Amino acid sequence: MALIVQKYGGTSVGSPDRILNVAKRIIASKEAGNQVVVVVSAMGGATDGLIDLAKKVNKRPNEREMDMLLSTGEQVSASLLAMAIEALGHKAISFNGFQVGILTDSSHTKAKILNINGDRIKKSLKKGNVVIVTGFQGRDEDDNITTLGRGGSDTSAVAIAAALLADECEIYTDVDGVYTADPRIVKNARKLSKIACDEMLELASLGAKVMQSRSIEFAKKFGVTIHVRSSFNNKIGTIITEEGDEMEAPVVRGVTSTISEAKVTIIGVPDKPGIAAEIFREISEANINIDMIIQNVGEQGTTDLSFTVEAADLDRLKDVMKPVEKNVSAKKITYDSDIGKVSIVGVGMKSHSGIAYKMFKVLAEKKINIKMISTSEIRVSVVVEQEKAAEAVNALHEAFELDKEIIYEAKL
Amino acid sequence: MALIVQKYGGTSVGSPDRILNVAKRIIASKEAGNQVVVVVSAMGGATDGLIDLAKKVNKRPNEREMDMLLSTGEQVSASLLAMAIEALGHKAISFNGFQVGILTDSSHTKAKILNINGDRIKKSLKKGNVVIVTGFQGRDEDDNITTLGRGGSDTSAVAIAAALLADECEIYTDVDGVYTADPRIVKNARKLSKIACDEMLELASLGAKVMQSRSIEFAKKFGVTIHVRSSFNNKIGTIITEEGDEMEAPVVRGVTSTISEAKVTIIGVPDKPGIAAEIFREISEANINIDMIIQNVGEQGTTDLSFTVEAADLDRLKDVMKPVEKNVSAKKITYDSDIGKVSIVGVGMKSHSGIAYKMFKVLAEKKINIKMISTSEIRVSVVVEQEKAAEAVNALHEAFELDKEIIYEAKL
Repeated sequence: MALIVQKYGGTSVGSPDRILNVAKRIIASKEAGNQVVVVVSAMGGATDGLIDLAKKVNKRPNEREMDMLLSTGEQVSASLLAMAIEALGHKAISFNGFQVGILTDSSHTKAKILNINGDRIKKSLKKGNVVIVTGFQGRDEDDNITTLGRGGSDTSAVAIAAALLADECEIYTDVDGVYTADPRIVKNARKLSKIACDEMLELASLGAKVMQSRSIEFAKKFGVTIHVRSSFNNKIGTIITEEGDEMEAPVVRGVTSTISEAKVTIIGVPDKPGIAAEIFREISEANINIDMIIQNVGEQGTTDLSFTVEAADLDRLKDVMKPVEKNVSAKKITYDSDIGKVSIVGVGMKSHSGIAYKMFKVLAEKKINIKMISTSEIRVSVVVEQEKAAEAVNALHEAFELDKEIIYEAKL
Repeated sequence: MALIVQKYGGTSVGSPDRILNVAKRIIASKEAGNQVVVVVSAMGGATDGLIDLAKKVNKRPNEREMDMLLSTGEQVSASLLAMAIEALGHKAISFNGFQVGILTDSSHTKAKILNINGDRIKKSLKKGNVVIVTGFQGRDEDDNITTLGRGGSDTSAVAIAAALLADECEIYTDVDGVYTADPRIVKNARKLSKIACDEMLELASLGAKVMQSRSIEFAKKFGVTIHVRSSFNNKIGTIITEEGDEMEAPVVRGVTSTISEAKVTIIGVPDKPGIAAEIFREISEANINIDMIIQNVGEQGTTDLSFTVEAADLDRLKDVMKPVEKNVSAKKITYDSDIGKVSIVGVGMKSHSGIAYKMFKVLAEKKINIKMISTSEIRVSVVVEQEKAAEAVNALHEAFELDKEIIYEAKL
């Protein structure tokens, strides 16, 4: 008898009919002899509806109260799903983050899970129940309700799978799995049967919206095997697992792009120690995430500093930068939201040289200008003009032959 | 500095604008020098919306899961109200039943409060917060979420007022207070400035929908003074308080009617011990509330038994009665939902005779036939044809001169 944790996203439980469909899927897994723990998101649209309500009474609502508000969404879908399973003749019980002891830190709206007490879940499983747990939420030491941020239900599911030593964590979503590229951009994008945690981490943080990054970190840390698959069909999806023999992994696993970022350049900053720290301290305190950072030496003892942020944070960033501009005696700050970031990812890169060079060459051949470059061990990212991003993704997908199945990939 | 508990019903917090209005009212009370604890219901319509959702996935949803589902409604309004108060520049914090330790028994959907731990509320008040608490809900010993039944927020408010030894418990609603009769039925119905707990108890259980009965029982038991008033204006409402000098109380305080009940008559039951017990055991196990019960000796060693139930329970009752009819060898069971119950209530009745007689005479003069009678120390109720109920209420209101202010009432 295997212990399976299944997670269903908001689209999958978006209506009473869909909830009943999910209930059938859960029951099928139960009848196949598994113990099933289910983690649910709020019904599709519910969280946005609550956020709209909050904005109508307070333009900048307190984050503790936001968590209090938003956490209700999952409690609704969890209890409805339990009812649906019972309507179909099986035992089910729902719990919220409080009840199953999902302890987090106190960073409201983006809390981190510290500990999960699996006792109550295990007890309820033993009684023959399907156990439904609200995703996305927990409580802090002082019994305040916390939430884990957008997509946090993935993290809840993986953390619960880790705490219960589950055999598998199935993440049900509205896509069939993880693709070599976004199928809306690349026609012959191919679904991957397996992908390494590290690769998925890079993809997740690069705009492939399949899973929340933190959930992959959890999976990696606790050795949880994730199966990303569609809740609308029975196809096998993509297995996310710990890195296998990297010699046999493909050099590039996927290409991804995001057009949601903006580039900020601080021109003519005095080239002396502590300046970067001063700039980024203010940004960090405003809770704005920085992505790529590049610094070049400029003329006459000054330097230019560029970085990217989510375009949605740009207005807040401009407020933050006003005093910073003076404090660091910068000449000028420019903002450019007309950018696209294109990345190639693959654990095989570690042992293959020339991958970055090949990427730049492909883009040069297409006359696509590179504005910024950043790399990790298993990723190369470039910033290009926004309107060229899709073309770049297609060119790279073709150049690295990602449409072709790689036989040895199965050994990952 | 007084400690005030205020309770706002679903209509009062039915929209973002109304929530902001309620926030202003709360702030006014705070700025007048009070410590304020606020108990809120779910936004008007929210609970019904959740019930509809539940019915779409399960026609007979599990009660534990219903509580899990419905308790979210108050958490939404509580957090929104806290945000609204903060938007207006004051400190506020919201708590659910779990967080403030509202311990109840485990009777899901109609739980009774066993204990309230006021520590967290007191601590938050000391920090200068307006404390918002979700009404209607608590948790049982096993950390399951429970709800207190329709109107349960009133009970939450009074119980919290009792636990905190609050100076007053203000129940804000969509009416100005408690009236001598329903103003929609009796044109010159008069708002009462004071009413005794016992009278309010009778009125509440007789269909005057101003407050939940259990909240009045709590108020009586713990000596909480309740002030029922409108959330839409600043008029003084009705004070519900412990009975004063009853000699000076009016004989009849109010007239009330309900048309939501149905009459059940079991004809030809053998007149022997244990029969009534058998009948009502089954009904009680089906969780159907019985109101009036009358038994008459019939012919040939048999007896007829009549009682009233909520008409909404009639279908379920008929299911229950089928086997009962056989078991007790009854001749026949008749059901009549075309009834209205009319009652007069007043603590002064205790010391005045002839009140019931006067009531029957007034109805006789109007040629209104009485189908059932039941009395308590401070109440006389009769069942009449449904279409005559309003006429009966008007006739009694006039006969007992309830439109006239009674000067000595102030001494209650």
